Parts: sequence; C-alpha cells; structure tokens
Amino acid sequence: MARYDFASDNVAGAMPEALDALVRFNGGFEAGYGADGVSARAADLIRGLLNVDAEVWFVASGTAANALALGTLAAPHEAVLSHQHAHIAMDETGAPGFFGSGLGITGLPGASGLIDPAALADALTRPDTPHGQAPAALSLTQASEFGAVYGGDALMDLTGQARAAGVGLHLDGARLANAAAAGFDLTSVSRLGIDIAVMGGTKAGAPPTEALLLLSQSARRRFGARLKHGGQLISKARFLSAPWIGMLETGAWIRRAGHANAMAKRLAALMPFPIAHPVQASGVFVDMDDQALARLNQAGWFVYRFVDGTARFMCSWATTPEAVDELGAVLKSIA
Amino acid sequence: MARYDFASDNVAGAMPEALDALVRFNGGFEAGYGADGVSARAADLIRGLLNVDAEVWFVASGTAANALALGTLAAPHEAVLSHQHAHIAMDETGAPGFFGSGLGITGLPGASGLIDPAALADALTRPDTPHGQAPAALSLTQASEFGAVYGGDALMDLTGQARAAGVGLHLDGARLANAAAAGFDLTSVSRLGIDIAVMGGTKAGAPPTEALLLLSQSARRRFGARLKHGGQLISKARFLSAPWIGMLETGAWIRRAGHANAMAKRLAALMPFPIAHPVQASGVFVDMDDQALARLNQAGWFVYRFVDGTARFMCSWATTPEAVDELGAVLKSIA
Amino acid sequence: MARYDFASDNVAGAMPEALDALVRFNGGFEAGYGADGVSARAADLIRGLLNVDAEVWFVASGTAANALALGTLAAPHEAVLSHQHAHIAMDETGAPGFFGSGLGITGLPGASGLIDPAALADALTRPDTPHGQAPAALSLTQASEFGAVYGGDALMDLTGQARAAGVGLHLDGARLANAAAAGFDLTSVSRLGIDIAVMGGTKAGAPPTEALLLLSQSARRRFGARLKHGGQLISKARFLSAPWIGMLETGAWIRRAGHANAMAKRLAALMPFPIAHPVQASGVFVDMDDQALARLNQAGWFVYRFVDGTARFMCSWATTPEAVDELGAVLKSIA
Amino acid sequence: MARYDFASDNVAGAMPEALDALVRFNGGFEAGYGADGVSARAADLIRGLLNVDAEVWFVASGTAANALALGTLAAPHEAVLSHQHAHIAMDETGAPGFFGSGLGITGLPGASGLIDPAALADALTRPDTPHGQAPAALSLTQASEFGAVYGGDALMDLTGQARAAGVGLHLDGARLANAAAAGFDLTSVSRLGIDIAVMGGTKAGAPPTEALLLLSQSARRRFGARLKHGGQLISKARFLSAPWIGMLETGAWIRRAGHANAMAKRLAALMPFPIAHPVQASGVFVDMDDQALARLNQAGWFVYRFVDGTARFMCSWATTPEAVDELGAVLKSIA
Repeated sequence: MARYDFASDNVAGAMPEALDALVRFNGGFEAGYGADGVSARAADLIRGLLNVDAEVWFVASGTAANALALGTLAAPHEAVLSHQHAHIAMDETGAPGFFGSGLGITGLPGASGLIDPAALADALTRPDTPHGQAPAALSLTQASEFGAVYGGDALMDLTGQARAAGVGLHLDGARLANAAAAGFDLTSVSRLGIDIAVMGGTKAGAPPTEALLLLSQSARRRFGARLKHGGQLISKARFLSAPWIGMLETGAWIRRAGHANAMAKRLAALMPFPIAHPVQASGVFVDMDDQALARLNQAGWFVYRFVDGTARFMCSWATTPEAVDELGAVLKSIA
Repeated sequence: MARYDFASDNVAGAMPEALDALVRFNGGFEAGYGADGVSARAADLIRGLLNVDAEVWFVASGTAANALALGTLAAPHEAVLSHQHAHIAMDETGAPGFFGSGLGITGLPGASGLIDPAALADALTRPDTPHGQAPAALSLTQASEFGAVYGGDALMDLTGQARAAGVGLHLDGARLANAAAAGFDLTSVSRLGIDIAVMGGTKAGAPPTEALLLLSQSARRRFGARLKHGGQLISKARFLSAPWIGMLETGAWIRRAGHANAMAKRLAALMPFPIAHPVQASGVFVDMDDQALARLNQAGWFVYRFVDGTARFMCSWATTPEAVDELGAVLKSIA
Repeated sequence: MARYDFASDNVAGAMPEALDALVRFNGGFEAGYGADGVSARAADLIRGLLNVDAEVWFVASGTAANALALGTLAAPHEAVLSHQHAHIAMDETGAPGFFGSGLGITGLPGASGLIDPAALADALTRPDTPHGQAPAALSLTQASEFGAVYGGDALMDLTGQARAAGVGLHLDGARLANAAAAGFDLTSVSRLGIDIAVMGGTKAGAPPTEALLLLSQSARRRFGARLKHGGQLISKARFLSAPWIGMLETGAWIRRAGHANAMAKRLAALMPFPIAHPVQASGVFVDMDDQALARLNQAGWFVYRFVDGTARFMCSWATTPEAVDELGAVLKSIA
Repeated sequence: MARYDFASDNVAGAMPEALDALVRFNGGFEAGYGADGVSARAADLIRGLLNVDAEVWFVASGTAANALALGTLAAPHEAVLSHQHAHIAMDETGAPGFFGSGLGITGLPGASGLIDPAALADALTRPDTPHGQAPAALSLTQASEFGAVYGGDALMDLTGQARAAGVGLHLDGARLANAAAAGFDLTSVSRLGIDIAVMGGTKAGAPPTEALLLLSQSARRRFGARLKHGGQLISKARFLSAPWIGMLETGAWIRRAGHANAMAKRLAALMPFPIAHPVQASGVFVDMDDQALARLNQAGWFVYRFVDGTARFMCSWATTPEAVDELGAVLKSIA
C-alpha cells in the first residue's frame, strides 16, 4: 500500500499536545454551542498570541471557515478577489458560492500563489457594472498554496490598496502556523486591517478545528446564528477548542510548524527534480513528468499533482527526518 | 455557578469508549476526506448494526447532517413535512432553508413530538399549486424531541403513506441510540424505506460526530462533493469515525443510551411536578411555572424551558444516579 | 366558462393610460438595463409623487420585488417580521427564503392583516439566541391582504418601534394605489423611515411592472448587480417603466384605484353574506360556507377562499358597476 | 448624444406584430399565473413551430430563464459545461450560481463561441472528485455570442457526447430566431435530446419575454412552483405570451431575424476593419484599437468592446439599411 506521508499535511493525526488537552478537558459538564469555559480560554490564548480584539469561534472545517468568512464580507451579487490558484478559488467545490449564495471569485495572478500588487490595483480600479460582480473583499492566503510566505511590505501594499478601495479583508490562514514559523509577525494581523482571519488548527496538527477570528465589529453581527444557519455551530464545542489550549500553552502550534518547515527544507536539499517555488513553509513543489511520478508511485509513495502541474510534497508536524531521507533516496533512484 | 448536568445531552464530554478509540486511531498517516481505513471500518460497523446497504459519511454537526439530507430529498421550491415542533422546524436557525436554498418546512401536529398519521394523510392529499411548497419528503424524529419513541406500527403507517405518495423519507436520529435502547428495532430502518438516516453520535456520548446514512441510490449522487460544497467534508475524517468504532465494537452506543433512559425514569419517579410527556427515552418534560423554575435556578440547577412551555430535564451517558437523586431532592424542596 | 372578474385584481388587462404609454415609448433606440430615458422619466414621476429621495428600479414581479427587498435588509441567518398572513409569509412559495438564502419570516398576529403593535413590541424584545433567527427587518403591507388600510398613527407606532430597535423597514405596496385612494399619505413613506418600498403597478392596472424604491443609502449598494444576479434586470426596461409614465402623468394610478375601492364598497353594500373585514380598499371578504361557494360557482362566478377561510371578492380598475350589480344579484339569489 | 442603434439587439423597441398582439389580447378577464388562454395559445404555436412535446412557460428575463434551467439540470455541488465566453459564464453577475445555489460553470474553449468537441470530450472524461464540481449539464448557445451558428453535425456530436455521458442539455436560444433564419432546423431541438430550451423573444423584437421549453419530463416537476420561488411566475402572464402569438402567427419572429442577419452581412460588406468571426447571425465583430473606437464614439456612434476584445456591432429587427450605410460611411472615414 502506498505511503501517504507526504501527500498532504492532513494525513497525519493530532500532535500529543492537542490530543492531551482534548482528553484533559473531557470531564465534567459544560454549556453547549461555544458558551463553555474551555472555548473561552482557548479564545483568550488566541487573542493573546495575535494581540487582537476579536470574537473567536471554532469550526470543524477550513472550507466552512473560509466560505462563512467570504459570505460575511461580500454580498451575493459581489465578488471576492483572491489569487487565481487560491484554495477558495480552485478546491472548494463551490463552497464560497454556496455560503455566499452565488458570490463570485475573481482570480488574480502572481508568482507562487502570492498576489501581484499591480494585478490587484488593476482589479480595484475597474468600473462597476451591473453585468459583473464587483469586488467587496480581498482574500489573502498566508502561507500560500505553493509554500510561499508574504513579506511584511507586500502585505502592507495589498491590504493598503484594499482598505483604500473600501473592500474587506479575509486572511486564509490554514497554514498560518507555518507562516509564523517562517517569520510572519502574527501581531500584524490587526495592524493590516484584516476583518476576518481563519487560523488553521487541522493542518498544524490538531483534530479537525479551525479558529475564526472576527476582528471588525460589523463581521460579528449575530455570528453564532450565522454559524448555526451554516451548520457550523458545534454543540460540544470544547472538542474543537481544547486542542488549541494544548497547542498554544505549550508553544507547540508554532514550534511544530517550524519542524514541518525544516523538514521541507531538508527534503528540498535532497531533491533531484527542479524546485518550482521558494521553499518557505512546509511544501516542496517540483517539476516531475508523468513517468517520474509513476516511478515514484511504483516505489510506494503517493503525492498529488497540483493545480500548476507541479508535484507537491507536503511535510507536517509528524514528518520525521528518517522519512525525509528515505523519500530523498527513493527520489534520487528514480530521477 | 449553575450546574448544567440536566440542561441538555450535549453538556457531557465523551464516553471513555469513544475517546479511547480516538486516541487509538490517532497514529500513522491516513488518506484524507473520508477515504481512510478508520472511516471505512466505522461505516462497516454501522451497516452491520442496522443491517443496511448504505453509503456512510461522518459530519461534525447534526444541524448540517439534517439540513444536507433535506436538501438532497427536496428541491428548493418544495417542502419537507415534519412534526411542527421538530428540531429541524424550530431550532436550526434556518439551516434547512439555507442548505435547501429556500426549501420549506411544513409542520404537522401530534402528541409528544410524534406525527399524527391523520395529519400526514391530510398534508399528502392537498392539491399541488405553484403558490405553495408541496411536500417532497417526510422527516421523522426517533426518539422525538419530547422523549417519546415511535412504535413499529406507527412507523409503518407513516412511512407507508409517504412511500405511497412518492415523497422521500428522512430519519432524524440524533437520539437514535436512546430509541434503540427503548426497543426500536434498528434493522427496521431499511425495511421502512428510509432514504437518508442521521444517526447521532454526539448526544450519545461521542465527540462531535454524526453518521449520515444514504440508503437510496439517488441520494448518494456525488455526495462527497455535496459535503465539500456544504463545508462538511472533514479532511482528518478519522477523528469523526474512530469514536464510532469504540462505541459500536463495545456495544456502548446503545448500552449507555439505555443508562441515560434509566436515569430519566429514575428522575421521573422522583419528580414532584406534573410530567407532560411519556418518559420513553432520556428526557423528562414537566409543567413548572416561572416561580418554580426560578427557585430551581436559585438552588443552582439550570434547565431550559422547551418549545411547548414545559421544563426539560435531559439525562445522558454521564448522568449519575447520585446526581439524579440530588436533583430530585432539590425539586421536592422547591415544589 | 366561469367568470374570473372578481377572482383577483390581476385578472384584468392593462388600463388604457398604461398601454398607450407603452406604445408611445416603443419607438427609437434606447440604452438597455434601466439606463434609458424612459425609465429615468418614470422614476422622476415616482419620486415626485412620494416626495422622496430614492433610487428607483422596475421589476417584473411583486414576488421578486419583495424577496429582493427582504434579502437586502436581512442576512440569511436573520428574520423578517411580518403579519402572519402577509403575502410574503403565505403565498410566495418560499421566494423570500430563496432570495434571502434561508432567511426566516416570523409571523405576527393582528386583525385584518394589520400587525398588532403589542405583538411587534413583544417580538422586538425577545433576546437574541444563536438557535433562532432574530429580526432584522419589519415588513408592512399597505393596503393589507384583507383590504384594510393602516392609519397614520398605527404606522407611526410600528415604524417607530422598528427604528428604535434598529431593524429595517420594508413596505409591500402591491396595492399602494388602493391605500392612497383610501387616504394614505404617500409622502409619509419617507417620514416613516421606510428603507425599501415596493409600489405596485400590476394590480393597479399596468402590464407586469413593480417599482422598487430604495430610500436608504445602504440598500442601494450595487443594486443593479443585485437585480441582474436575481434575474430581474430587464434589458428592455422601458417596457416596465413606460406604463408608469402613463399612469402617473394622468393621475390614473390613484384615480382608477379609487374606482376599484368604490366598486368594493358597492359590492359590500349588496352583499348578503357577513363581511369579515373592513372594506377600505378593493377587496370584500365574506363568510361563505362550502355550499354557498359551490352555488356561486354553479352560477358561473369564480372566487378564491382566502387564507383565513373567508371568500375573497377583488375589484380592479376594470370592474364595472354593471358587473358588481350582476354579481350582487347572483349572491342574493344563492344566499 | 450617442446613437445606440448597433450597441445591442435589445436597444430597439418591439416589432409591430408583437405590440399589436399585446394590445389585441389586453381586453377581458383572464386567469393569472400562466393559466390563461393567451399563454396556452402561444405555447401551442411554439410547440408547433419546433414540433416538440414540451411544457412552455414565459419569463421576463433571459438571465432568469437560463439560470432557472441550469438550476433544474444541475445540483448545487455540480457544474454546467459551457463555452468559456458564453453569456451564462461571463455576463450574468453570478445568476447561475444564485439560482443554482453555488453551482459551478466550467468553461470550454472553441472558435467564435462554438464549443470544441474535443474539449467537451476531455471535460466529460475527467474523473469525479469531491474536491471539484463535476459536470451535470452541457449548455449550448445557438446562435453563439459571437454571431456564429452551430451546424447540424457539430450539434449531433456535442449532444451525442452529452447524452452518452448522462449529462443534461440546455439550449440558450436568446438568438434562436437568428439561428433559424441562418438555417438552423428548429425541429432538431427535440431530436438532439435537449432537456430545456430557452427561446428568445426579447432580442428577436418582443417586449421582455423569453419562452422556457421543458422537453424532458423530469425537468417539468412542479415548475410553476419553481418559477414562483424564483420570482418569475408572472401574474398577468398574457403580457409575456401575447407577443409570441403575434410573432409566430405572422412568421415575423424568423422573418425579422433574417432581416437582422442580412443587415449584419450588409455591414460586414462595408466594414473597413478586420472581421474577427464569421458573420452568420446578427452581429459583426471586428478588430478595432482604442483610438479607432474613440473616433467612432466621437463620430456619434456607441458600440461595446466584447469579451474577446473585439468591437461588437449588433443588428436587430429595427436596423435599417440606411443606418447601416450611414454607419459604414462613418467607419470608412475613421478607419
């Protein structure tokens, strides 16, 4: 059977810190639907880490977290700007259009999943027309789908443009821990004027849980009801919040993301195929033709061909140096 | 601080069997999005228990499970028939209308949350008109919102009517374990012609997880994509399926529901207020005026006033005889 | 074949003033999608008549006009308050839930389709909960479904409550002409703080056309795109706006509604069955049992049984005194 | 003021035959919501012309007609295949996603708006995945957005592929009259296995009206309710159906489309700029740079730059040879 170790960062289980906390907070009776003390404590930890004033909710899937955020920031007849290869544009089976009742996604170009500021400027200056969906929000992905990390200046530029144009700001942080470990300043989220941030737990090493941070007041309006309406108000919410306590109190959320990033660099160093994107977070994207990919599969390893045609190798908290070296040897043998 | 022990059956944590399995299946790498071996094994156990041919998915909330089911069975311009006090009609913040793009819910009367067969017959014979939403599905809740359990004959009558009228059948089994413990034959689900059944894990004592059983072929069409579109395709699906393995392999899913039912009966025996509904599952519904409810709160216990005006006391797998007796004494003192 | 003259106010064709204008403005080339001079002129006439600052659009159905308005004022997880027998609550086949992506309608009681102010006060003071759809707007119907007309004081009370509670205001004026003819001051629409008003053309005697008046700035946001998204941006908009020019320049919109009201009073005076609601606009609602209704049908006249069980007789611009007298004689003969 | 004569085929008014019929059928009382004799007669004429067994409805906008059709043929988590520059993909402000609750549109390439059969074959053989919206329907536009007309063999190929793959078939016939005048056999619609056809009245020269033809039985299910739910069930339906009687009884629907096509050919013959697409229907698409387009505007004529960057000149039933010649002279002077 094929090994899935590098197929995605969601093929691993939960890190010990997350699971321990889940077990630790299992006892006793707690109010339901997010009104429990465990969720309040996890929310405090998140607010502290990012130094933000935000309402925090925990949901079970990143698809829902992002789609709910977009539907909050854009009306159905409006659009969200994102990178043309962003997860919300390519890989959500229409969820943003569903949660947003037909809202549009307008894709922008840019290298390695990072939006080109000039393309944003162009999109923001197109005249409104009733025959198209004009932008109401900008969605940024940090780290990007292609393992790249926005620098502070690029973020200032993009978010500044958005604020000047009066469009909302969404941060898809499914891999925010990897970005933080790569140097992204988490406390900049507030300064950048982000309205809604999704902070990934699952890919970082938790059981299914994503934190939804509502920074702007307008985004908070009856959000509990919005979650219930969207099937995302979890009754036993502590099971989604407890892992965050474990990951944040111990620092494991960032530390283990740093490990994943290091494993990607280790793999990159061994990689005999051309590397297509900068290895700044936990993924290594390489040019491999179908024959090479088939040989890799025959050697027992499964990875996906990504939207840009590259082969994607993802590391996670659970990736071991031994597995990287073993894969490296296999790659060398088939190159 | 108020005690929430009897406020709901979702205030308890997870039963040991569920949590142990979650920890047990945490190790190693598994394919994502429900294609993992853990989910396959849990699905097999469920199919075996109900003796059904069904596609099985695991989702994180009952709201979503039911709303997705209803949106599968009825078109947006159609309606679902349910008890007028069913959870889907009263307590989902419009989720069925959202997942069903404006589908309607037509409430039917009946004692203790059980649909009156004559009311169903009446609803099914109303002529179609473009000015109203005609029924495309019937939703049954077993056990009911009011702690009552349909008998086999009643179910044969209701489902027979539905099948004869060509409308689909949805089973809201958020408390199916309690119904099973009270004598409901789980293997009748298939014989009754249910198209989609929701089998509750959360209220039974799992971390957040509900099993969606697609019995009819037409309901299965691209359901993985439907889940993703609806924000309910969980990447690390094993965390939703593993608890089922623990609960079903040990028999704890039904056994502990039987315990909850027994606790309800124990509480009913001590209850000094008039009992409003038959105590067949895990809830006790009583007539208490506002003064009595205030006294109960002052004595440190919190329970909800339910949609029919009764005070609702819910037992769960975690309810202890001691807590029941303690509450019984308090109730006696304030009656 | 049965005579439909009194079955509804939409069984008549278009009044001469409306049709003449449609023919008059048919010539020449005009910009599409509402940017034409004919639509601008009609909008000016409407703004002048109501003395309002409003963006005005013309749509082809009242269902869409109202549903688009509600979806603009309430988020999907919120609700609209209306009379429990309002058209939007009873007779739109779920359109508000569709255009509002699952928004809820909360019905309020009150005599003859007029909302009871105490019931509104009660609804506006219920505490918010994530488990229900809290009100974001109040919908008023003037004239009501039952032919009653709100007085100025009642409207001040209801709209004052709504504004104090921060909920939006929608006016369903499918029969606003009839209300105006009965004494309603059209210039009060602005003073009452209405956010979106729907002003009926069709029932007043136009070909299919309803005017949507966006009074509040926030409601106007990209409304052309909202209309296109909802399938209601008409390319040859002049065909929906020209009839308004004909009806308003001549005063026929109110004058002919006054005729319809007078015909209803004439019919009421001849009515041998008990009259169930005040006859203030164009409808007469009476208590008739099934036998009487069957005799009326056998005598060749068709009318509908309405949501409150009464038999509804509707007059229109096209109703003649002779037809009223003829019907009156028939009613007398079968009473 | 700029002349809009060639800006679109919706800038003209209604042809005499359509308007005369509208006036002719205005008198008397008729049942509402499409149950009237005028609509029945128009539907019969349409069925006769196409020699089809179809349920026929009349709606007020092509946007709605197409979006309702797509939402009938594809579930929200599925997609519709269309040309990448089809109107439904480029120019509906998200209406298909709204009426289809987030359904996707997958664009296919092909010259002059005609789908390349090989691209369709490729799209139909891609494996299903829960992470994308798989095709449930194919939408064909006849005549295409770029004034081209599918030949019979191409249609056989494309529809044969669709039927073999089990996906539904939608025909966007906003300019079906132009296609028919160019040689398209209307009676082939049924043989090709089209499930839902939209037959354009507006662009052909009617007041706002499009005919929706439901050929397959499954598409017909409670369609009146679907229309009402979508805000498209018109009460005074005769105003949408009467024009069809006038246009079809006289043959003017095709004859005047033939005139529009001839005007386009006349313009093409005078055109000094390179013609980008075959002139088979009523549009002429040419390569003009911004300077040339500006000179044209300064000369008093307005036309749109189209999605492929060409300048679009549209003719209609109302285009006169004199106007064509006048425009031709202007074009010559600025070339």
